[in-house]
Amino acid sequence: MSKIKVAICGYGNLGKGVEKAVKQQPDMELVCIITRRNLETLITDSVVPIIGYGDVFKHEWVDAIDVVIMCGGSAKDLPEQVPEFAAYFNTVDSFDTHAKIPEYFKEVDKQARYCGTLSIISTGWDPGLFSLIRVMAASIFPQSTTYTFWGPGVSQGHSDAIRQMGCVKDAVQLTIPVQEAMQRVRNGENPEFSKKEMHERECYVVEEEWSDRSQIENKIKSMPNYFADYNTTVEFVDEARLEQIRGRLPHGGNVISSATTGDGNKMTIEYSLKLDSNPEFTGAVLTAYARAAYRMNMEGEAGAITILDVPIAKISPKSREELLEMV
Amino acid sequence: MSKIKVAICGYGNLGKGVEKAVKQQPDMELVCIITRRNLETLITDSVVPIIGYGDVFKHEWVDAIDVVIMCGGSAKDLPEQVPEFAAYFNTVDSFDTHAKIPEYFKEVDKQARYCGTLSIISTGWDPGLFSLIRVMAASIFPQSTTYTFWGPGVSQGHSDAIRQMGCVKDAVQLTIPVQEAMQRVRNGENPEFSKKEMHERECYVVEEEWSDRSQIENKIKSMPNYFADYNTTVEFVDEARLEQIRGRLPHGGNVISSATTGDGNKMTIEYSLKLDSNPEFTGAVLTAYARAAYRMNMEGEAGAITILDVPIAKISPKSREELLEMV
Repeated sequence: MSKIKVAICGYGNLGKGVEKAVKQQPDMELVCIITRRNLETLITDSVVPIIGYGDVFKHEWVDAIDVVIMCGGSAKDLPEQVPEFAAYFNTVDSFDTHAKIPEYFKEVDKQARYCGTLSIISTGWDPGLFSLIRVMAASIFPQSTTYTFWGPGVSQGHSDAIRQMGCVKDAVQLTIPVQEAMQRVRNGENPEFSKKEMHERECYVVEEEWSDRSQIENKIKSMPNYFADYNTTVEFVDEARLEQIRGRLPHGGNVISSATTGDGNKMTIEYSLKLDSNPEFTGAVLTAYARAAYRMNMEGEAGAITILDVPIAKISPKSREELLEMV
Repeated sequence: MSKIKVAICGYGNLGKGVEKAVKQQPDMELVCIITRRNLETLITDSVVPIIGYGDVFKHEWVDAIDVVIMCGGSAKDLPEQVPEFAAYFNTVDSFDTHAKIPEYFKEVDKQARYCGTLSIISTGWDPGLFSLIRVMAASIFPQSTTYTFWGPGVSQGHSDAIRQMGCVKDAVQLTIPVQEAMQRVRNGENPEFSKKEMHERECYVVEEEWSDRSQIENKIKSMPNYFADYNTTVEFVDEARLEQIRGRLPHGGNVISSATTGDGNKMTIEYSLKLDSNPEFTGAVLTAYARAAYRMNMEGEAGAITILDVPIAKISPKSREELLEMV
């Protein structure tokens, strides 16, 4: 059986995670890495061609690739790149700006539908597996309430916000879920929470030599949206300690749904992830869904879809017969 | 919008659970209950026609029902009834004899495919949601290991086995997962377990007046397959205490997967259920999947499928636009 031919577009943390994930899949092979960086300076783990943007849309590559896993950022890369790539390739991406998903979906869908390709958008773990688990619970119990807790883990967006503040050399922000809040949800209390009642934010900062610590601390704690609404702590550390905290970008979270059926019986559904490396996990999810994108397109589906539209059987390397044994 | 017209076949604990679940669904209505029992003595919660086996295959009912939720037992009812019903109706069932699923699938598939109906077989929570979660983890991480723990909860099969022993008036068996074993799995130790290392079995027995307790206890503890391989405890109780333990048939369980990615990073995925009432939860799952059976058949699909073949979007009452907001 010939393997599914995968390309990676973007070789940051996520791209590297995908590269490792493809190696663990029995029916997939990496055929190239696509980058906008200088081709000669990029050092990759795999011995595959590294190709520039201008070259990937040439016939030889369009024919050689079954699916492109898009590993750029949600702010600028994906909204620009995915519609471009969808003109030629099946794609999978992790676009995670929740509020903009409907608009992004439309753009990608229009292009992919027109060109006969399939794009699975906004997958990974949140959006992604967590979305699937939330919709599953809400479908089984329309009157249920679902809570999502994130962490403990490194929030990249919040870490960036601190780093871009000025007077800061480097920073890591850990998001910590409040244990008592999780316990109340598990008890079926259906509590209403403010933001600070669900999550705490721990900031670890390496400051520039000449800077004023108390000023940095105040500036972080009063940053609207990011920190002002939370119990935020700031600790100044040296670079070695910061690297230790950053680790391999650990993360995780819990989705907890609680429902009450007809006779007042309580039901609690919980899904949790504990991840040593957020980009490697997200990469593994994208890789499994790349299999589905390729297969479903081979069966005639085109356009943009989400994780909610993909039967689990399509992400599995197992045959129909093997899967029946696993039910 | 007209509602999806649901029939329930079999009015035991599970049928009653489905009846309650349909009431909580905004887009479904119960149109009849099908039973083999004496029609005049059956008291139901809903004011709907109660119809006998002979009548349901008449034109008026075939036209009036969109999907039948099959609530009989796996030992005898479902293997006989589901192929019969699949000739006329879309069906959903909870056939749970794991080893026989492939054979059962073939029987139902042949009939449904021939008659243009759709049957979702073996759904509920295990087989069902747990199967989905297991296959999802194994697809994302082909080298992962997944463990399933059941309980704490009432095992109906094991309770029946004790009740049918003779000298026993009534009995309840609680399956208890071993906490230390679960913790070892969560730690990513990938342990190998014997049966008794994962689950304990607590038996609560009301004996017949004239019987010998120590004889009953020995007989239970030495019963092959059911109890001999486990740490089994037997306690003799009165009927009131037994009812208290039985409650509304609480159950639950945990599916825990652990994986190690390329660089030795550990990932743990856990899905858990805590259910005050097993039949009400299973009923709610079957009801949500009945929606999918009807919709997918309307879109042209026929034959037998499992929970692994159903996109989550199909079980949701929400529109495509609403679902995009939930991703």
